Amino acid sequence: MKLGFIGIGVMGKAMAGHLLDAGYEVHVFNRTKAKADTLLERGAIWQDSPAEVTKQVDLVLSIVGYPEDVREIYFGEEGILPAVRPGQILIDMTTSTPALAKEIAAVAEAKEALAFDAPVSGGDLGARNGTLTVMVGGEEAAFESVKPILSSFAKEVRYFGPAGSGQHTKVANQIMVAGTMTGLTEMLAYAKAADLTLEDVLQTVGGGAAANWSLTNYGPRILQADYSPGFFVKHFVKDLKIALDEAEAMGLSLPATTLAYDLYEQLAQDHADEGTQALIKLWWPDGE
Amino acid sequence: MKLGFIGIGVMGKAMAGHLLDAGYEVHVFNRTKAKADTLLERGAIWQDSPAEVTKQVDLVLSIVGYPEDVREIYFGEEGILPAVRPGQILIDMTTSTPALAKEIAAVAEAKEALAFDAPVSGGDLGARNGTLTVMVGGEEAAFESVKPILSSFAKEVRYFGPAGSGQHTKVANQIMVAGTMTGLTEMLAYAKAADLTLEDVLQTVGGGAAANWSLTNYGPRILQADYSPGFFVKHFVKDLKIALDEAEAMGLSLPATTLAYDLYEQLAQDHADEGTQALIKLWWPDGE
Repeated sequence: MKLGFIGIGVMGKAMAGHLLDAGYEVHVFNRTKAKADTLLERGAIWQDSPAEVTKQVDLVLSIVGYPEDVREIYFGEEGILPAVRPGQILIDMTTSTPALAKEIAAVAEAKEALAFDAPVSGGDLGARNGTLTVMVGGEEAAFESVKPILSSFAKEVRYFGPAGSGQHTKVANQIMVAGTMTGLTEMLAYAKAADLTLEDVLQTVGGGAAANWSLTNYGPRILQADYSPGFFVKHFVKDLKIALDEAEAMGLSLPATTLAYDLYEQLAQDHADEGTQALIKLWWPDGE
Repeated sequence: MKLGFIGIGVMGKAMAGHLLDAGYEVHVFNRTKAKADTLLERGAIWQDSPAEVTKQVDLVLSIVGYPEDVREIYFGEEGILPAVRPGQILIDMTTSTPALAKEIAAVAEAKEALAFDAPVSGGDLGARNGTLTVMVGGEEAAFESVKPILSSFAKEVRYFGPAGSGQHTKVANQIMVAGTMTGLTEMLAYAKAADLTLEDVLQTVGGGAAANWSLTNYGPRILQADYSPGFFVKHFVKDLKIALDEAEAMGLSLPATTLAYDLYEQLAQDHADEGTQALIKLWWPDGE
């Protein structure tokens, strides 16, 4: 089976690499061609546009930055959808909007093709190690046929429902993370103001009913003033904006998520390219 | 060594039981005497007031409901402090205010006694199994002498600093929990509105960067509409109020914790005696 892969960033490069390792023929396109160089050396085949990729393959995977980028590679003049053929499968793994995922699926269906939304979690480390989690929305009947491909770079590939459901699940994940990040940040701000030994607080609090992944992983980095991105502030702002827009469309109020969005938006003014743990800088402007 | 134990609720009863098991002579007082019956059958000795307990023992432990109750058992006419002797040790384990802990320590010191604040985490299960975590504030030099006693019912006993530091650490813990509880609640509210299968969302989200104790432990209970208290809404409201009062006194702004407090205060109007996972009822008034 011939695969296309559009979007060779940190995530995409690692994922496409796993597909090559699994023996697939992989046709690639990226806005900046140089980023695909090592993949091309490993046997990937360059194409000059998403449309060209689509023409060459059976199944197209994509992971780009923002919903606008997804719209561009799908609906643009040289995009995927103008070139799609009956029977083709399209899988977008960008964390994007459920609404856009449904729109793509509807257009694909009209052209007798199948589109899945399949955002991932697990970060750059998960992509490199092939241990991502993939949250899939789309036609259930066709899910089993795409699962083995996605399993090339994932430890878990789970079906959540019709088009948009993968994106909805990723949104739910980010709402949860907003809670652990704001909680962790305010806990550290409080503990420092109260003159406690922060390492001890992390260890004790992290060992009980307040335990969470953000504390274990970002807590120590904050104490070392390490604000390098595991996950970019600017991407988290995007994700939380999607959460709030979708919630509003469903008539749902999410006050804690709204507050987290406001804080991260404020943070993004000066720290958009740092990691989400930089939220503490709203309290510690000098990073401790 | 003769010990006193004041406050025989769910927590205190289990903790005092472990002290009896460890071979200590334990003198007890509780507002409602009947709650001490099984301890008395096991060899505990009843006293008619906190003052009477204090007169009989070397070291007094206490765990009651609210800061007002701590003030009453310490400063009341028949309280601990009017009866305290030089050389005695006083340990309050109620989750109470750092300010009150400092006040007690100062009065104790003036009477040549020593007071520790030592709130616990781990809940009724931790108390029963003797696996609590104890966060201690007070005189460091005397900490080692009280540690073995507290270890009778704890898996971890850690010193955090001068009087009030144990309470400050517990406050930090509750600030973190406020984040995981609001995040979990809004995640489930969103996922249900988006028509996702909630069991699958809990499993997938709980396996990655959004993982946390609240999700693992309360998520499934919420899906079963089980709102029985592991930890009471009314007690969490108290704890978050302490957090915000202390933060304000330190000139610290905690917007996410403030929001969590507002939500839990609203919830407490009708659900004060349910567990903290009942927060979802602000979204699902019928409990799913």
